[in-house]
Amino acid sequence: MSTAIRFLPNGTVTSARGFVAGATFAGMKTYSTDKLDLGILFSSLPCTAAGVFTTNSIKSPSVVVTQAHMERGAVRAVVACSGIANTAVGDQGRKDALEVLGLASRQLGVPQEEIAFLSTGIIGVELPMGLIRAALPKVQLAESGGGVFARSIMTTDTHPKEAAVAYESGGRTITVGGAAKGSGMIHPTMATMLAFLATDAPVERSFLQRTVKEVADESFNMITVDGDTSTNDTFLLLANGAAGGPTIHSESEEAPLFQQAVTELSAHLAKEIVRDGEGASKVFEVIVEGARSQDEARLAARAIAGSNLVKTAVHGSDPNWGRIIAALGRSGATVEEQKVALYVNDVCILENGLPIPFFKDAIVLQMKNPEVTFRVHLHLGAARATAWGCDLSEAYVTFNSVYTT
Amino acid sequence: MSTAIRFLPNGTVTSARGFVAGATFAGMKTYSTDKLDLGILFSSLPCTAAGVFTTNSIKSPSVVVTQAHMERGAVRAVVACSGIANTAVGDQGRKDALEVLGLASRQLGVPQEEIAFLSTGIIGVELPMGLIRAALPKVQLAESGGGVFARSIMTTDTHPKEAAVAYESGGRTITVGGAAKGSGMIHPTMATMLAFLATDAPVERSFLQRTVKEVADESFNMITVDGDTSTNDTFLLLANGAAGGPTIHSESEEAPLFQQAVTELSAHLAKEIVRDGEGASKVFEVIVEGARSQDEARLAARAIAGSNLVKTAVHGSDPNWGRIIAALGRSGATVEEQKVALYVNDVCILENGLPIPFFKDAIVLQMKNPEVTFRVHLHLGAARATAWGCDLSEAYVTFNSVYTT
Repeated sequence: MSTAIRFLPNGTVTSARGFVAGATFAGMKTYSTDKLDLGILFSSLPCTAAGVFTTNSIKSPSVVVTQAHMERGAVRAVVACSGIANTAVGDQGRKDALEVLGLASRQLGVPQEEIAFLSTGIIGVELPMGLIRAALPKVQLAESGGGVFARSIMTTDTHPKEAAVAYESGGRTITVGGAAKGSGMIHPTMATMLAFLATDAPVERSFLQRTVKEVADESFNMITVDGDTSTNDTFLLLANGAAGGPTIHSESEEAPLFQQAVTELSAHLAKEIVRDGEGASKVFEVIVEGARSQDEARLAARAIAGSNLVKTAVHGSDPNWGRIIAALGRSGATVEEQKVALYVNDVCILENGLPIPFFKDAIVLQMKNPEVTFRVHLHLGAARATAWGCDLSEAYVTFNSVYTT
Repeated sequence: MSTAIRFLPNGTVTSARGFVAGATFAGMKTYSTDKLDLGILFSSLPCTAAGVFTTNSIKSPSVVVTQAHMERGAVRAVVACSGIANTAVGDQGRKDALEVLGLASRQLGVPQEEIAFLSTGIIGVELPMGLIRAALPKVQLAESGGGVFARSIMTTDTHPKEAAVAYESGGRTITVGGAAKGSGMIHPTMATMLAFLATDAPVERSFLQRTVKEVADESFNMITVDGDTSTNDTFLLLANGAAGGPTIHSESEEAPLFQQAVTELSAHLAKEIVRDGEGASKVFEVIVEGARSQDEARLAARAIAGSNLVKTAVHGSDPNWGRIIAALGRSGATVEEQKVALYVNDVCILENGLPIPFFKDAIVLQMKNPEVTFRVHLHLGAARATAWGCDLSEAYVTFNSVYTT
């Protein structure tokens, strides 16, 4: 981590200046102990905004209408609901999304085009519009509302994911706050389910969009819970400029620092999602280095992190490196077997493609930690990528066998 | 099934004329109740032979040397061992494979180039050559040896997979027998772990190779247990011509019937592998029709059959069609949501992309069968593909959490 960037104690999505949020209980989320299911994040100032969205060809109409608004780049408010995905419900899904945006527009006093609407939960069920119409006006917006907003987007998550980072530049403090949620159907080819970041930095639109894309590829796109890509994945970054100072663009001296801050916050939230993956008891990190290209490093890291066999081995604290090598081999990355090295928590157990003697009990003990790192060195180039996965447990199976029935 | 093709009662890999087999216990397989771990399949006549192999870039040296022999197209013997994969062991793996081939060559009295050697089991362990040298001469070959050969290739399989089909053509009976094994690390991008077919048909080499490739794409390449591709996958077809009659080539009138016989036997063995998938209690079939192309139909069927969320839903007999739609959407196949129809065991539960009312208890009851069929109609074209998967159970996780430790 850059020493210039610090995580704030009790950071939330409203830690940056000029953002308020709130949430209420509409009655959509019936399967969680936390009943908050309708939230609003709002900037009192106009924003530049950028986002990336699910690549699933079946998309929620909530995503479709939000994508259109994001293309204009001035979204300053997010309405999010949990419990129902508003997906695979035909044209009614689009009508309902537009109605929610209309209601929010009147309530917030900003044009619909400046509002994003996202939904997450069960597929194939229409939004209960009567409940939403009644609940939306009850959402009270406050600077302290980040916490309830983060709770309102949870589905099978066991706890909210929220954090904020800050750095000093040009005599002012730039803050970036964020909230995210998982925790199944997580193998983003964009970003995981829902993640919202809000900053008081003034940021030029095209640079903001580039930042979102690049950051997603180092954070939300590098996690996997179960290999399934949701129909509703969305990652948004809103920048309202409340911190003042010069607008950050791709040539700014501050640009790398800003990107780094967004990356660190996003990687933190992404790891939190994995840690809270359905049935997960452990998180593991896969570092692939020495790859021929960044794409190949990413392919390899994701293949290993996503392998059911690697995930069950992690669950059992079993240093079954054959499974790591097999997943690496099928990943699509260029691999020369006789150059591969593999480390478990910095202990080398394979070098030049050959197992080297290790004290198995010691490695098993290492693997009993709640966090395990596998580092693979391909010795073919200079590219490097990191992915995060969680173990696959009996609890994941039990949980997902009885989800809707 | 073609009415001209029949499954033989008690069919084995030696059901076709001119094939003998046998197996013994060398001491490599320590984790199975069936200790047979070294088998030989042999044709008393010269053969044409063809095969397809794992696409994993980490390959067992057993596969590498066998591939070279298969390119000559005259392989008439298969030596197979189970318990140890002979993978990721450096150059020793190649030396050991060549020594096994040399020993078998002297024992069988045929050149090394006419012998295939395959291995399956734990990665990263060298073959115990002392045990193999002592055990190989003990293998007794007999026409009745198909059954012990099928047992000798099992690893985590709970029972052997073997069958044979026959058809009449031109006044003679053509028989195709086969043996295969699973049952984890199963998501072939070629063919699953090991499958050996032996026929007494006389078959021209290039047509045989085309047949193997096309059949694999409709059978072994369409099954998935856990999404992982093994380093040792191999599917071989040996044809010794013992049935007599004209040689079958791509222009023969008999060619489609021969291909159909091989396809039916292979699909049967492939389904048997899925049914015996690690921890599996159910097998499900995914038929995708109305796709724009065969490739897209295959992509979609495999994505659905391979989804952990679909597999856990099948485990819980939960008609959670949203997960099927989400997997379809991320598959890479062209999908127009408003055209999609979905059937569970022929009961339509989604039409024009919209759920249609169904009696849930009745569908849950359908899904409690040991075999479930999901049929997806994309209504975009005429292409169709079928894939097979098994449920993901708590037992799979438990089993794979304690595999090597």
